[in-house]
Amino acid sequence: MKDTHLRKDPVTQRWVVISPDREMLPISEPAFSPGLSSEECPFCVGHEASTGAEIYSEREPGTVRNGPGWWVRVVPDKYPILHIEGGLEKSAEGMYDGMNAIGAHEILIETPQHDKHWADLEMLQVERILRASQQRILDLRNDARFRHVIWVKNHAMPSSVLQHPHSHVVASPFIPRAIEEELKGFGDHVRWKERCVLCDIVRQETAEDRRIILREGGILVLEPFAPRFPYESWIIPAEHSHDFGATRAPVLRDAARAIRGALVRIRRLLKDPPYSLVLHSSPLGEFTREEYHWHFELVPRPPQTLGLEWGTGIYINPVAPEIAAERLRAAVD
Amino acid sequence: MKDTHLRKDPVTQRWVVISPDREMLPISEPAFSPGLSSEECPFCVGHEASTGAEIYSEREPGTVRNGPGWWVRVVPDKYPILHIEGGLEKSAEGMYDGMNAIGAHEILIETPQHDKHWADLEMLQVERILRASQQRILDLRNDARFRHVIWVKNHAMPSSVLQHPHSHVVASPFIPRAIEEELKGFGDHVRWKERCVLCDIVRQETAEDRRIILREGGILVLEPFAPRFPYESWIIPAEHSHDFGATRAPVLRDAARAIRGALVRIRRLLKDPPYSLVLHSSPLGEFTREEYHWHFELVPRPPQTLGLEWGTGIYINPVAPEIAAERLRAAVD
Repeated sequence: MKDTHLRKDPVTQRWVVISPDREMLPISEPAFSPGLSSEECPFCVGHEASTGAEIYSEREPGTVRNGPGWWVRVVPDKYPILHIEGGLEKSAEGMYDGMNAIGAHEILIETPQHDKHWADLEMLQVERILRASQQRILDLRNDARFRHVIWVKNHAMPSSVLQHPHSHVVASPFIPRAIEEELKGFGDHVRWKERCVLCDIVRQETAEDRRIILREGGILVLEPFAPRFPYESWIIPAEHSHDFGATRAPVLRDAARAIRGALVRIRRLLKDPPYSLVLHSSPLGEFTREEYHWHFELVPRPPQTLGLEWGTGIYINPVAPEIAAERLRAAVD
Repeated sequence: MKDTHLRKDPVTQRWVVISPDREMLPISEPAFSPGLSSEECPFCVGHEASTGAEIYSEREPGTVRNGPGWWVRVVPDKYPILHIEGGLEKSAEGMYDGMNAIGAHEILIETPQHDKHWADLEMLQVERILRASQQRILDLRNDARFRHVIWVKNHAMPSSVLQHPHSHVVASPFIPRAIEEELKGFGDHVRWKERCVLCDIVRQETAEDRRIILREGGILVLEPFAPRFPYESWIIPAEHSHDFGATRAPVLRDAARAIRGALVRIRRLLKDPPYSLVLHSSPLGEFTREEYHWHFELVPRPPQTLGLEWGTGIYINPVAPEIAAERLRAAVD
């Protein structure tokens, strides 16, 4: 039990990653970290040798793997929370269930530029980032050990040392709790109404038009009716689709425009806050569920103290979504 | 929709408090707040008039309500997340469900001393605190509008302005998500095994003795098998009981000793960290479930950045509970 492994809580059935090798990692500081300079940054052009071997890239014609000339680049995480090697082994310890920490943990380096906000990226570059995450999902789903792939971007978190724009692709041998919760909701709604709950939301929001922030072709950005966090925003395809992997180029382009549009507003309104952006998509293989409706969840300024929230699951949000939507709508340049 | 109210997310069915009147509250700072001095502190002796009227107190014989002489004191929260006045009114907005924000939000002032760690309190004082929370639960459960009462203590969170030891008693007209998740687990285990899952845990942990930190009479303190956070600890009565309200004086005394013992170790090992301590007990009235097993959950250093955790429900914990238990066991004076 000295290496990273997975354990299931017997009460809530939640899988947790126990990761002793992370204890020695640089510890989060409560104050803002200055971050690594471009000279020290392992994600900058010219420092390709300081990451693991390239898994995927889009690059200028004529340039070679693991060298300069890339626009986006995916590499293994240096401190992976899940490990790619080995077979899945489940184990018991009396009443408890464990599993070895099989999975994938990759870093998507989003631009060659060391310090660039998504709101300032060219649209073509945002598209490349989304396409790279999609390509990685399409590849990782071939691995029968994995039940889910998630893509997560954290921007300018107080504790982050690496400020070079990057995100995480994580394939896991279990379905993350947040996705499981949603699956239950989608399933219940289908059984009760014979409709997709997110399609119903899209219909009602479009008709009411009080919480929609923007629309780009087939993609809506809106404040959900019951947001957990101020200015929490969902980026949703208007047409039902359970699978981000199957999203075609025009919709991906709309999504890029929609996400950038949302981030431009959030940066302006909240004065360049940290934010988290997470892709929610259906589980894989035999766990796929067509009633699921993929989307992104965007949370600016994830809270620093979560006592009540994590302890109880009671979220307290001071900004009503209609107000947030109104303010965000107005927050254009 | 301008006053505080409740909304249910139609996908996950999670109730969220939308609380516009909180937007102007002092904002959390990423750095440590110096806190109010004893002279400015509304919870200090002699400042009884600066809180709302006393709901409960234990005090020296011969002293009067709302004056000095108290040992513990419960008052209404100045900025309640839920409000006590009015009837429960449920409402719909198309497909969405709302409710007015009925509930109770009280502050338990834990000691007359402005700056005192629980680890330094006399045992009698810790008992008084637990008894006060129990008495408030017993009173609030008479209100048929409430489905659950939770007690939460946050110690020395970076953003807290009020450092005078205090905790929150919150009665809600819905069952908090964390409790709901556990109820499902308790229910599934009973159906499958015809036993309580936490009783099974107590049995296995007692037999293995690898994750138990201490035992005080009828109360165990242990690291759970799959802790979400480093040094997360559960304080559990060894004998099955769903209802903290029904806990008798000797067990309450054991609980006081057990909690203080755990906090002494955590303060020593982790160098006086912030922590959260939350009481998990069965819902009320017709929602009571006898298969539930009450307990406290204690989390030192709740994480500052929760991107992956809140976004995905994947928790990454660098400290295996056996190691944590071992270190905490050794961390005695």
